[in-house]
Amino acid sequence: MLPHPTHNLPTPSVQRLPSYLRLLKSAQARGETVVSCTRIAEEFGQLSVQVRKDLAITGVSGRPKVGYQIAELIDAIEGFLGWNVKTTAFLVGVGNLGSAILNYEGFASHGLDVVEVFDANPALFGKMVKGRAIRPVAEIPERAKVLRDATGQTLEMGVVTVPARAAQSVADLLVKAGARAIWNYAPVQLELPDDVVCENVKLSESFAVLTNRMRMRRS
Amino acid sequence: MLPHPTHNLPTPSVQRLPSYLRLLKSAQARGETVVSCTRIAEEFGQLSVQVRKDLAITGVSGRPKVGYQIAELIDAIEGFLGWNVKTTAFLVGVGNLGSAILNYEGFASHGLDVVEVFDANPALFGKMVKGRAIRPVAEIPERAKVLRDATGQTLEMGVVTVPARAAQSVADLLVKAGARAIWNYAPVQLELPDDVVCENVKLSESFAVLTNRMRMRRS
Repeated sequence: MLPHPTHNLPTPSVQRLPSYLRLLKSAQARGETVVSCTRIAEEFGQLSVQVRKDLAITGVSGRPKVGYQIAELIDAIEGFLGWNVKTTAFLVGVGNLGSAILNYEGFASHGLDVVEVFDANPALFGKMVKGRAIRPVAEIPERAKVLRDATGQTLEMGVVTVPARAAQSVADLLVKAGARAIWNYAPVQLELPDDVVCENVKLSESFAVLTNRMRMRRS
Repeated sequence: MLPHPTHNLPTPSVQRLPSYLRLLKSAQARGETVVSCTRIAEEFGQLSVQVRKDLAITGVSGRPKVGYQIAELIDAIEGFLGWNVKTTAFLVGVGNLGSAILNYEGFASHGLDVVEVFDANPALFGKMVKGRAIRPVAEIPERAKVLRDATGQTLEMGVVTVPARAAQSVADLLVKAGARAIWNYAPVQLELPDDVVCENVKLSESFAVLTNRMRMRRS
């Protein structure tokens, strides 16, 4: 039984779970069945107590002197992250970045199920990308209705990989179409209703941390 | 004069600077010359005291009741992040993700200067991408030497946009060629010498935060 806390969970702990998951899956693929906290901690240069705390949010605890059952821990992390179920999504913006997301199998293994793709460029309408026909952005609400009527599925997430200037209007359309989560790759702060969760992929922010550290090293 | 602290700076503060910079540049483009801390804070739903603290790491402080001179603050942030100088880089892996980075003008405006691009796929060798000929990965050290001999420039950063299984060997080549910073998009923990700074772009981690929040909302 997973915990259902009403308070906010520590984001850094949630962010570390995918790395742990990758480690656990490699270990499992090598035939291992048990892993210790210390071993995970060493791999990531972290304190053992931090790893234990991170893993505890999934509701699983290791046994002293034995460690964690790998299969159980994988299930717990995937369940906690919602990666054991499909997340029905529309992706808007089929440029290089959008295509990279569609082509990366890792996201599909995390449950991301992009059922429709959209773009603003008429030259792309009707072209196929990974088995999906590219449609005009304006058709987003209509396609959400088709999805519901034809399959009973609900649009859950919008993946926004459009230029900054188009991101807000695209997000508005996705929300209007029923999306309750936006995964935003555009470098812009979106204004969204309170009941919509949003996560911004911070590429410039990541670059800033790196170039700042380089400058510090030089000085 | 910029501060040259020897201790580590708070990463979240550094990560918030690019957003502030975008806001300041929009304000400047509209002809504004002064901005208050409160105004910036409101835009990002943050506490004014946090914004003041974030901006203070760049060495600039606002004047009470007046605020910050926008031009001065832009210069201070860009200088602090090292975005006012060019960062000479090699990019390895010219798939969709690598192409997205090459095509995104934002990074160039942050100083990222990708002078050579590499790939492992022989079918791509010699093809041009944004004015650069794609070369075999094995030529990385040689091209760093050519760069030095021909232009006097030093390879500073390696951008790694290859699949996870290839990332470590590519990073090793980049470090051997002189790179002192790695911007890693592959979902793998790289082992690097202590004098090399590394920043991992955490796409799965970002997805984890989003899907976990979605699950929490549903439960």
